[in-house]
Amino acid sequence: MKIILDGMGGDHAPDAIIEGAVQAIAMLKESDEICITGPEALIREKLRKYGYHGKRITICDAPDVITNEEAPVMAVRSKKESSIVKGLNLVKHGEGDVFISAGSTGALLAGGLLILGRVKGIDRPTLAAVYPVLGGLPPSLITDAGANAECRARNLFEFAVMGSIYMEKVMNRPNPTVGLVNLGTEKEKGTTLTKDAYALLERSDLNFIGNIETRELQSAVCDVIVTDGFTGNACIKLSEGIGLTVLRLAKDMFMTSPKTKLAALMMKDQLSDLKRQLDYKEYGGAPVLGLNKALLKMHGSSDALAVQQTIMKAVPYVEEGVVETIAEALGNRARTLRDEEKSAEQEEQSEQKKEEE
Amino acid sequence: MKIILDGMGGDHAPDAIIEGAVQAIAMLKESDEICITGPEALIREKLRKYGYHGKRITICDAPDVITNEEAPVMAVRSKKESSIVKGLNLVKHGEGDVFISAGSTGALLAGGLLILGRVKGIDRPTLAAVYPVLGGLPPSLITDAGANAECRARNLFEFAVMGSIYMEKVMNRPNPTVGLVNLGTEKEKGTTLTKDAYALLERSDLNFIGNIETRELQSAVCDVIVTDGFTGNACIKLSEGIGLTVLRLAKDMFMTSPKTKLAALMMKDQLSDLKRQLDYKEYGGAPVLGLNKALLKMHGSSDALAVQQTIMKAVPYVEEGVVETIAEALGNRARTLRDEEKSAEQEEQSEQKKEEE
Repeated sequence: MKIILDGMGGDHAPDAIIEGAVQAIAMLKESDEICITGPEALIREKLRKYGYHGKRITICDAPDVITNEEAPVMAVRSKKESSIVKGLNLVKHGEGDVFISAGSTGALLAGGLLILGRVKGIDRPTLAAVYPVLGGLPPSLITDAGANAECRARNLFEFAVMGSIYMEKVMNRPNPTVGLVNLGTEKEKGTTLTKDAYALLERSDLNFIGNIETRELQSAVCDVIVTDGFTGNACIKLSEGIGLTVLRLAKDMFMTSPKTKLAALMMKDQLSDLKRQLDYKEYGGAPVLGLNKALLKMHGSSDALAVQQTIMKAVPYVEEGVVETIAEALGNRARTLRDEEKSAEQEEQSEQKKEEE
Repeated sequence: MKIILDGMGGDHAPDAIIEGAVQAIAMLKESDEICITGPEALIREKLRKYGYHGKRITICDAPDVITNEEAPVMAVRSKKESSIVKGLNLVKHGEGDVFISAGSTGALLAGGLLILGRVKGIDRPTLAAVYPVLGGLPPSLITDAGANAECRARNLFEFAVMGSIYMEKVMNRPNPTVGLVNLGTEKEKGTTLTKDAYALLERSDLNFIGNIETRELQSAVCDVIVTDGFTGNACIKLSEGIGLTVLRLAKDMFMTSPKTKLAALMMKDQLSDLKRQLDYKEYGGAPVLGLNKALLKMHGSSDALAVQQTIMKAVPYVEEGVVETIAEALGNRARTLRDEEKSAEQEEQSEQKKEEE
């Protein structure tokens, strides 16, 4: 397989990207390749810097860069020579199997829709993020993570289907459990959106466990956390903020006095383990699901390790056929959904008739 | 002043409630009184147990209890002899200045609306919660904390006004800053709701600092955090969940081996400080703002210390005239808002006319 990697995305590009690619190429199968998009001379120089002289990492010259500050749709439309647009086009035309970028989320989502296109039958693709759970429990997937701030019940249902497929195929979680974020666990709680989504999820063949409260997210309460993008985004960023604050406080705590500094030395292993757990970077890639091709968004602050890990996650994403499975499942399910909506409408109409009679 | 206290609300009632009341009465002014609602014999027995024999704590017999499992409106309507309904009625009829309860949030909100009534000119009262910030920074107030899952822009605006008044009067935060929770800090980001609320807040005389991301909540980014009740509830419960998880992990970390146990002993003071910071109970009461009387909701897991602290917070809530100030401010502002809406409508109509011409 051929992985297309945005050489210019994220806070530590191009260095962290190239270093991560060089690490990953040594771990990938002999037949796998990486193609990096970005200004050719610069990328070449960085490849040399990180000691790569092989032929399995190639460069696709893209002199332009889309920044986080630019209006996404406009940027994607006008900057044809940018590392993001070039990368997406390579994947679109079959010259790559997946595009990975730590660049502007907005540009990637807009570019994903405009260039790769959405799977037929799906209303809205979703940005799904791996939600890290502390204490060694397996991470959950949260969908939507911020691509769709305003949702209909149908969207949440589709997020659940796509998230379940990703968890099963990429994260090896057979028959993944699905939970719906709500104000309380009782079925009748929440907004019109959560009530309608609950009804759709309950009727589906997903492994739906009902409503969940965010208090339980850290207990790995379910494999797939379903919510609208506004709430999902708030949860992810809040967790990140608290994680960083706890790390800072722990550091201060251990630096208080010679005695606490000694204690820190005695706890060295445990502390580096805690740091690793609270460090969001390591979990890497967030897939954009519901597009015609595989797309992985990395955190803007990704370091070389995060880049390497995301590249490794791209392998099952492509090889297990996540995109194709989603197209198949949601093609069918979308039909079922339409049928159900139709029959619900008909039922309503016949009830109205009865009432009128 | 006279504080009415629900003797039967919360996980540790009546013991924690009575113990907290006994602690508080020693700290209150000589002229202040506490009246506890609940089954008279039981409350009397507990007062004896916690060594109170004075006359400033009285009992209002309320043999019935509303549980968390009951449908709130129905419970409030049918259980006239419950500690919540009796307490609210005492405050309504001027026989108390504030009602404090750790009981069912739903019943308190429903009872607040049905019995105390909403301030004229306000669309929706709000449950505002003190959001603890780690590392010794001053806590913020988050409004709405879950009473209003679905909001209009006008509601968010009113939450901001009421929250600002509470922070200024009760938490001694002059000219409190107001931030709007959003997906990003840029003005044009977000949903229809956040964009409309942004416009209202921007035009107001509040100390509005713009959009905030939840990543910043732990940095005490603003005094009043404004958001819809669904997001607010998610943020509070998530913070609580992460806090508990971090505490559990820290405990495990220090119990790993004889060496780490020794380290824990060396860090005793710092650890108990961290525990105190991560412990939500201490921050206590969440005011319900926008009602005709003062109402404080305590966390269900409140212990005696939380009860005592909430009682002490009730003093400025009443004495600084929060309820009256809100009525005054939102009476005026509601008028301004209506005028603005009218003039916006007129503008639109005249523009349409121009276009037609």
